[in-house]
Amino acid sequence: MTTREVAEAFTAALREGHGEETRFWSDDVVSLEAMEGPMARIEGRAAVEAKSAWWMANHEVHSFTVEGPFVHGNQFGLRFGLDFTRKEDGARMTMAEIGLYTVADGAIIEERFFY
Amino acid sequence: MTTREVAEAFTAALREGHGEETRFWSDDVVSLEAMEGPMARIEGRAAVEAKSAWWMANHEVHSFTVEGPFVHGNQFGLRFGLDFTRKEDGARMTMAEIGLYTVADGAIIEERFFY
Repeated sequence: MTTREVAEAFTAALREGHGEETRFWSDDVVSLEAMEGPMARIEGRAAVEAKSAWWMANHEVHSFTVEGPFVHGNQFGLRFGLDFTRKEDGARMTMAEIGLYTVADGAIIEERFFY
Repeated sequence: MTTREVAEAFTAALREGHGEETRFWSDDVVSLEAMEGPMARIEGRAAVEAKSAWWMANHEVHSFTVEGPFVHGNQFGLRFGLDFTRKEDGARMTMAEIGLYTVADGAIIEERFFY
């Protein structure tokens, strides 16, 4: 699959919302957040899936929009719009962020989030 | 300047629309487009300024929006919304794209466009 094909299929799966997008992650995918702490760098498909599951369990999502993909070479970007409540303290937040994905051999080997 | 400081100042200058953003480019900035041809890779501040001037001279811009910056480490992203007419053939186009900027020593050393 080309980068654009991976990008289109991954984005479609994200929009469907059934978690099928995880099949595009390489077994040794790396997930990078722009913050300090234990979530800053997560390695491996199982750990990244656990990170996603933790986030979904601890936040109530009111809306989630995905714009893209925007492709360049072996990378693509997505623009996310989020409206959610943090269950821990009930704080409701709206935010936008960009996810930058790097593809090799038809799989996502890195995801990097910007905000 | 930190990456976020460069990102905020560059973005503010872009929004002002007077071309002041070019002062944040390194002398040896590289500009990368996701296409084949002479615009695919432009090196050096003067050449990147000439590229921008060419684009502005050959397109009539009806609207230009900038969302961001979205920061991660030494990089930041911007989301552009464009509505323009290509003077060559009169074709009017609306498009969104992402610009990914890499910062070193307080200056932008690379810009990479995704669409």
